[in-house]
Amino acid sequence: MTIHAHAAFAAREKLKPYSFETKALKPFEVDIRITHCGICHSDIHLIDDDWKISRYPLVPGHEVVGTVVNLGPAAEHLKIGQRVGVGWQSGSCMSCEWCVRGEENLCVHDQATCVGRPGGFADRIITDSRFAFPIPESLESENAAPLLCGGITVYSPLRHYQVKPEMKVGVIGIGGLGHLAIQYTRAYGCEVTAFSSSPDKEAEAREFGAHHFVVHSDKKRVKGLKRQFDFLLSTVYVQLDWNEFVSLLKPHGSLVFVGAGGVLNIPASTLLSLKSVGGSAIGSRTMISEMLEFSARHSIKAVTEPVPMSQVNQAVDRVRQGKARYRMVLVNS
Amino acid sequence: MTIHAHAAFAAREKLKPYSFETKALKPFEVDIRITHCGICHSDIHLIDDDWKISRYPLVPGHEVVGTVVNLGPAAEHLKIGQRVGVGWQSGSCMSCEWCVRGEENLCVHDQATCVGRPGGFADRIITDSRFAFPIPESLESENAAPLLCGGITVYSPLRHYQVKPEMKVGVIGIGGLGHLAIQYTRAYGCEVTAFSSSPDKEAEAREFGAHHFVVHSDKKRVKGLKRQFDFLLSTVYVQLDWNEFVSLLKPHGSLVFVGAGGVLNIPASTLLSLKSVGGSAIGSRTMISEMLEFSARHSIKAVTEPVPMSQVNQAVDRVRQGKARYRMVLVNS
Repeated sequence: MTIHAHAAFAAREKLKPYSFETKALKPFEVDIRITHCGICHSDIHLIDDDWKISRYPLVPGHEVVGTVVNLGPAAEHLKIGQRVGVGWQSGSCMSCEWCVRGEENLCVHDQATCVGRPGGFADRIITDSRFAFPIPESLESENAAPLLCGGITVYSPLRHYQVKPEMKVGVIGIGGLGHLAIQYTRAYGCEVTAFSSSPDKEAEAREFGAHHFVVHSDKKRVKGLKRQFDFLLSTVYVQLDWNEFVSLLKPHGSLVFVGAGGVLNIPASTLLSLKSVGGSAIGSRTMISEMLEFSARHSIKAVTEPVPMSQVNQAVDRVRQGKARYRMVLVNS
Repeated sequence: MTIHAHAAFAAREKLKPYSFETKALKPFEVDIRITHCGICHSDIHLIDDDWKISRYPLVPGHEVVGTVVNLGPAAEHLKIGQRVGVGWQSGSCMSCEWCVRGEENLCVHDQATCVGRPGGFADRIITDSRFAFPIPESLESENAAPLLCGGITVYSPLRHYQVKPEMKVGVIGIGGLGHLAIQYTRAYGCEVTAFSSSPDKEAEAREFGAHHFVVHSDKKRVKGLKRQFDFLLSTVYVQLDWNEFVSLLKPHGSLVFVGAGGVLNIPASTLLSLKSVGGSAIGSRTMISEMLEFSARHSIKAVTEPVPMSQVNQAVDRVRQGKARYRMVLVNS
């Protein structure tokens, strides 16, 4: 069988059609007919070889939703015809300390869906069924696709850093990740402040659930928020004044990064009142299932701009330019 | 009544005898006849005006043990003749969120024992009885005095950052704080590694309870410890390669600073596997009482060099030069 995909053939170049033949399914594999695939900033980094790990031709895409069309003999937990999603991770060693305790996302032998293997900018994907997740019925595929990476990226740190309903939370950066983080923290019952560089995002941020909106270049306003926050989640890829954000934390508060951008340049003395700075990346299989269920229960959805798969290059450019409001999703007709 | 103390009259100068008259006790005050007072690095910073907050004459000393000789009418929880200890903090607002929830050490209106008021390099101290703690009988005064600041400084972060018996813990810096941190983490049941710049501290570090001893300039040895530690406690005041120490953390691991020294210069990306960097300073009244009880139960004691109060300048110099093994304690005869 032939998979019809879109691939980068060199760094920073436009994607071109790319077809390849599939082999027989391995025991745990699943063959998914893709209906939707979100575009994440990581796809752009891979296309552009920003991380110096890209091999070409490279088929991006790791926010996949589609329908099961075939299953390997060991893939017993899925059914043909079922709607499933696949995120950033599509494999792990399944035997190390972290895999065994159900935190496969921390496995050093993790396999990414579109690194060293073809991703979701395609009509089909063959991948490990153990990293394919049934999508709750009430979620629309278009709005659910970005949850598979963007959603879990901001949901998982709420769980790991023990965000609780009584807390005051700030979301830094209101884009593909941030607009979901506002929805999750609002659903958690928190008091939510959106920090953005763009004053024109205020109305939407409030619609997503933010109680307050702060333009973080407004230094006077920011200074007035010192020692106010239990939890700050940074979803940005740029260098901001992290010392200033640490000063906004209450004692016991945490500033958590989910992106790879920026260098902390913080005197240890600023942390002495039990403050901490941490990180988080994607989430375990258990956490992804939980996130999907939580999203369905609270009607949390990615706000998307759907684009036909054939117009992939226009969509990629829009993400590269930071214009997506809030997630581009490729749609197979 | 006259208190006979030793005071700095200018930054970096030798201490000189200094006497002053006391007033009638306020309702919550206690008058303590001092038998022992430890010397902490913070005393040196205050004498030398390193923090630009010192006012002279300045009577240092905030690791006090002595006997209650008088009590204000509201100081009902102590008894005359009782042995008590006083640490870094001697007051707080008692009404803010943090005081009310029993974390007085996080109060922004905290009062330090020897900042803006005379400390423990003296024959007596008058202070708020609510920050004076009965010393368990089995602890010798000489070994208990340094627990009031040094002990709580390393004990409190174990509690706040949820160190547990199954964990692998590293203590960075084996001095006045570090030698106590080894004892506490060993008593917690952890596997303990001591990191020191001084190879000659190995035998003693093992006696304090360290299972392993690593000279942190031994880069090859340190590289072999990547992703091994659940918790690293830094007790040093110097800049080390904090990125390297973060690389020694397991996922979920924390690097915690109890000193004001050093600047973190860490790419946020190094924290993505749920690692965090935090801080901690002293501890609440509840935590100090718990720490003293825990120390008594586990026979944890500061290893001290006792010096008569009259030789305070020689003792201060020894701390300033980093020669104390492991805590200088002034003794009133």
